[in-house]
Amino acid sequence: MILKNIDFQKVIEKVSFETLKFPDNGKVAAYIPPLARVNPNKFGISLVTLDGKIYSFGDYDEKFSIQSIAKVFALAIAYNLLGKELWKRVGVEPSGTPFNSLVQLEYDKGIPRNPFINAGALVISDVLLEHLENPKRYLIEYVRKLCDCENIDYNPEIAEGEKAVGYRNAAIVNLMKDFGNIKNDVDEVLDFYFNLCSIEMTTVQLAKSFLLFAAGGILPHSGERILTVSKTKRINAIMQTCGFYDEAGEFAFKVGLPGKSGVGGGIAAIHPGYYSVAVWSPRLNEKGNSISGMKALELLTTETQLSIF
Amino acid sequence: MILKNIDFQKVIEKVSFETLKFPDNGKVAAYIPPLARVNPNKFGISLVTLDGKIYSFGDYDEKFSIQSIAKVFALAIAYNLLGKELWKRVGVEPSGTPFNSLVQLEYDKGIPRNPFINAGALVISDVLLEHLENPKRYLIEYVRKLCDCENIDYNPEIAEGEKAVGYRNAAIVNLMKDFGNIKNDVDEVLDFYFNLCSIEMTTVQLAKSFLLFAAGGILPHSGERILTVSKTKRINAIMQTCGFYDEAGEFAFKVGLPGKSGVGGGIAAIHPGYYSVAVWSPRLNEKGNSISGMKALELLTTETQLSIF
Amino acid sequence: MILKNIDFQKVIEKVSFETLKFPDNGKVAAYIPPLARVNPNKFGISLVTLDGKIYSFGDYDEKFSIQSIAKVFALAIAYNLLGKELWKRVGVEPSGTPFNSLVQLEYDKGIPRNPFINAGALVISDVLLEHLENPKRYLIEYVRKLCDCENIDYNPEIAEGEKAVGYRNAAIVNLMKDFGNIKNDVDEVLDFYFNLCSIEMTTVQLAKSFLLFAAGGILPHSGERILTVSKTKRINAIMQTCGFYDEAGEFAFKVGLPGKSGVGGGIAAIHPGYYSVAVWSPRLNEKGNSISGMKALELLTTETQLSIF
Amino acid sequence: MILKNIDFQKVIEKVSFETLKFPDNGKVAAYIPPLARVNPNKFGISLVTLDGKIYSFGDYDEKFSIQSIAKVFALAIAYNLLGKELWKRVGVEPSGTPFNSLVQLEYDKGIPRNPFINAGALVISDVLLEHLENPKRYLIEYVRKLCDCENIDYNPEIAEGEKAVGYRNAAIVNLMKDFGNIKNDVDEVLDFYFNLCSIEMTTVQLAKSFLLFAAGGILPHSGERILTVSKTKRINAIMQTCGFYDEAGEFAFKVGLPGKSGVGGGIAAIHPGYYSVAVWSPRLNEKGNSISGMKALELLTTETQLSIF
Repeated sequence: MILKNIDFQKVIEKVSFETLKFPDNGKVAAYIPPLARVNPNKFGISLVTLDGKIYSFGDYDEKFSIQSIAKVFALAIAYNLLGKELWKRVGVEPSGTPFNSLVQLEYDKGIPRNPFINAGALVISDVLLEHLENPKRYLIEYVRKLCDCENIDYNPEIAEGEKAVGYRNAAIVNLMKDFGNIKNDVDEVLDFYFNLCSIEMTTVQLAKSFLLFAAGGILPHSGERILTVSKTKRINAIMQTCGFYDEAGEFAFKVGLPGKSGVGGGIAAIHPGYYSVAVWSPRLNEKGNSISGMKALELLTTETQLSIF
Repeated sequence: MILKNIDFQKVIEKVSFETLKFPDNGKVAAYIPPLARVNPNKFGISLVTLDGKIYSFGDYDEKFSIQSIAKVFALAIAYNLLGKELWKRVGVEPSGTPFNSLVQLEYDKGIPRNPFINAGALVISDVLLEHLENPKRYLIEYVRKLCDCENIDYNPEIAEGEKAVGYRNAAIVNLMKDFGNIKNDVDEVLDFYFNLCSIEMTTVQLAKSFLLFAAGGILPHSGERILTVSKTKRINAIMQTCGFYDEAGEFAFKVGLPGKSGVGGGIAAIHPGYYSVAVWSPRLNEKGNSISGMKALELLTTETQLSIF
Repeated sequence: MILKNIDFQKVIEKVSFETLKFPDNGKVAAYIPPLARVNPNKFGISLVTLDGKIYSFGDYDEKFSIQSIAKVFALAIAYNLLGKELWKRVGVEPSGTPFNSLVQLEYDKGIPRNPFINAGALVISDVLLEHLENPKRYLIEYVRKLCDCENIDYNPEIAEGEKAVGYRNAAIVNLMKDFGNIKNDVDEVLDFYFNLCSIEMTTVQLAKSFLLFAAGGILPHSGERILTVSKTKRINAIMQTCGFYDEAGEFAFKVGLPGKSGVGGGIAAIHPGYYSVAVWSPRLNEKGNSISGMKALELLTTETQLSIF
Repeated sequence: MILKNIDFQKVIEKVSFETLKFPDNGKVAAYIPPLARVNPNKFGISLVTLDGKIYSFGDYDEKFSIQSIAKVFALAIAYNLLGKELWKRVGVEPSGTPFNSLVQLEYDKGIPRNPFINAGALVISDVLLEHLENPKRYLIEYVRKLCDCENIDYNPEIAEGEKAVGYRNAAIVNLMKDFGNIKNDVDEVLDFYFNLCSIEMTTVQLAKSFLLFAAGGILPHSGERILTVSKTKRINAIMQTCGFYDEAGEFAFKVGLPGKSGVGGGIAAIHPGYYSVAVWSPRLNEKGNSISGMKALELLTTETQLSIF
């Protein structure tokens, strides 16, 4: 595993070519107009090594909706705010059921299985609303800082679109409120959550903003410590076991890196101690994960012989 | 992460002392007499590095029932026999429900979520019965070879004890037979399964027999390749996401190593590229995992700063 | 079964005495203040025979919150409006799970099992909102007509109280909206539903307003046909199989009459062709049914030897 | 409701003609050969009034496999043996899930919801094995006595056929044994259960043997009391709420009589105080109930204006 011997630009290009040859009949998320009209054939990938070198291919400088990937940022903030008290309100176990199911939530009396299913991210949203003065501004500035770029924002059309069809999330947050696990007004929690899911980034920006998880919690570009080593590892472990809805096992099995996917077709992943990587391809499988994105990461770890396993 | 700088013997001892100071009110598995009468205060740990050096502490040369840990060996054999065809009969996703639940099995029409819940290990047993001439002998000789020691065997009293109370496993195997996912006679499958769970080893033997998973599929003592790199990584990924019943997330969160536990109080874990480790302490938490065993491994990765995350 | 030989006043009194001797440690519903402060020791019972004779005992002229019993009136209106089309949006099977569970609703893709669980009554509310110009006024005038008394109304304090804690019902209605089984705005549906549950009546009024279900759909006091014979029978059948949350079997088993209970401690029941009966006692068992109410009806059918079985 | 004015022979014939005009694309149960080879177009119906008069039409003197209908006889015997102690081992609530599901059984810790789902009938079988010297002989003689005919027996080919594919029932009984709710050897319980399901009768015999449930527990032909009035009513109530797998509500809704169906295509039902009726037509709907059988009974209650509601 001698990193300097790897020509990452070549690897990224080879992986991209092979991925693009692979037939992909996935469907773009179509539940809200701004997602439905994305060009399904987009493909971008960016890899950033710990020393800050960036390797990219394809549509890497085009912004897309990172959707649930943003839940990792919200988790990082909440974990820093509450420490291990956070785990009284949300678990760290994989869910075994789809990301938006109410069955397990009812069985577990309103405590979501992990912070990445919708219920868990709604509780995290509630935590941020409870402890931050201006949570929306705090979040977006946090992401800009991780990424070291100002040019990142919410997309209000996406947030509005989510709200207009967000009945299932409203069901989830009301159910948790009934169980006492939501402290704020349900509409405020939903508003924050839909904004969280509306952040747009390029693969370059996304890979850069995930680099601290590969770097033990330090921002390589500034040297600033954002998370303790221990908290970083634990967030990585949660990404590993829960980052891909009910395909977390499949992703661990094939790719072997902690990561998080979103229905916008993005995936961000890291190899601790080595690099972060972001890929975007809007066609999804039936579990809601990017088909070509997963393929590209599988080929990446095969090609580099670098996986955490 | 410069391995040679770590004095593993010192680490093992420090970890053991700290673990033993930690109060442990867990209960020994008592559903069969030979498990119930084990001294609850036993504690042994062994760590083997890739170069074959062994570091141990406590009751490391006393045999105990490795129970479900043996499912990893059975999986390795079955995976080699069937290749990826195996995944048509058993999944690789965490279960989200207790290890012996029938709910998800019925919902998923007889396909177990992963090879480490009881249902999955019964399917793996069925595969071995289908493809090996003398599966019981094959399995025990396979384990002896991994460990490089002849002195390992089934404990017939344990196997008989399991059979005498094995109604839930009988329910599981009959349900899968109903769904067409068991090819052999249900009683033969159960007999093999109960023997599989009856293997006894010391922590030294267990750590040695897991070393190939840390070594990319090669037996370090002989240089023989047992599993391809890819198959090894994938078994490690399954251990990571599914190795601890419904506490896999907790283990990933706190320890950060792929591993497998058993109700005999044993845990085997590996750090790919570095070492394998086995720990034994019979007191279990309510999820069926060794309390002091999990604590010791948590302290080990904290102390060495070595985790896959 | 010669009705005229029964002295119903004597029966009612005997049943009441025996019921009141029976120890009742049930708890009054306490989730909203106006229910919590009801005197737990209230007990009233009224029986009305087809010829309009009324037999009562105890607190029979005191109003109480009939709560879910009002769902029967809403069902009768909706069934008349839509006919058998109604059964595309709500089933007629017992639920097997608590009245406010989301599990089965998710499994059945937003189609409630029957019109008496909360989800079903919310769909019925949605139907009334869809087809009536002023559904709140229509409903209350419908009830007054069945009862032949003007002195019946909503209790706004109850409706407000329900709304203030109605997160689970909000979860249910949002989940059904997500599945496309709610046509109106979720807040309007909830508002109507909470009003529906706030109606207050005496046992005399309640028994009188249920008499048409014992009379094949005709109002005995005016001779007006409200429901066809067939629709009446079918509503009775639904009361029989689904009227007591997950205790419908127990009620059929012990009492043997179609009926409907409410968490205000009321129960209305009918013997087709003979009589209607209403009982009120606020102490509830853990399933949410009035303990003394069920006891009184059990004794009534034992005493009169009149049950549908 | 003046019974003597009804010409039952005419009604039976009219109902039969209308039923046979109704298109029936149901499928004959095909999981065992002796059921699969039954002529799907068979149709027989018999109605017996309390005074012993028999009215029949079609294939009423041909024997068929009554299957689960026999569970009513087993329940009657067990209820007489244990009295209300029986309800500690089996419930009286409808199940809300298919007749052979393990989900609710696991949730309810091995206590079946009612005596008519497979799990419940297996517990009833276990009770008979526990308390009777020769339960198989006792059962068949009991049925012969109810029917007042010797010419009724088990069909060993059916019993063997059930056993050969009985993995799901084996799963159920093992799961209950695990929970401690089965006292005998699981194989003995299964053997009795498969015999119970193998009894063959004509519609005439079946209607006659159900007459006691319409007659308050007395055998009209001999005057012998078999069950108390109270026990009879309670068995009727269980038939009403649980007799048609997860279509009990539908049957109550459309037919309005207590009854029990079997996958052989038979249905037995009663109108307390009036008559018993048996119908046989092997084509089943997806819930496992006879399509034409249910239709005929629906037409019967419509035609006679006689339903318990």
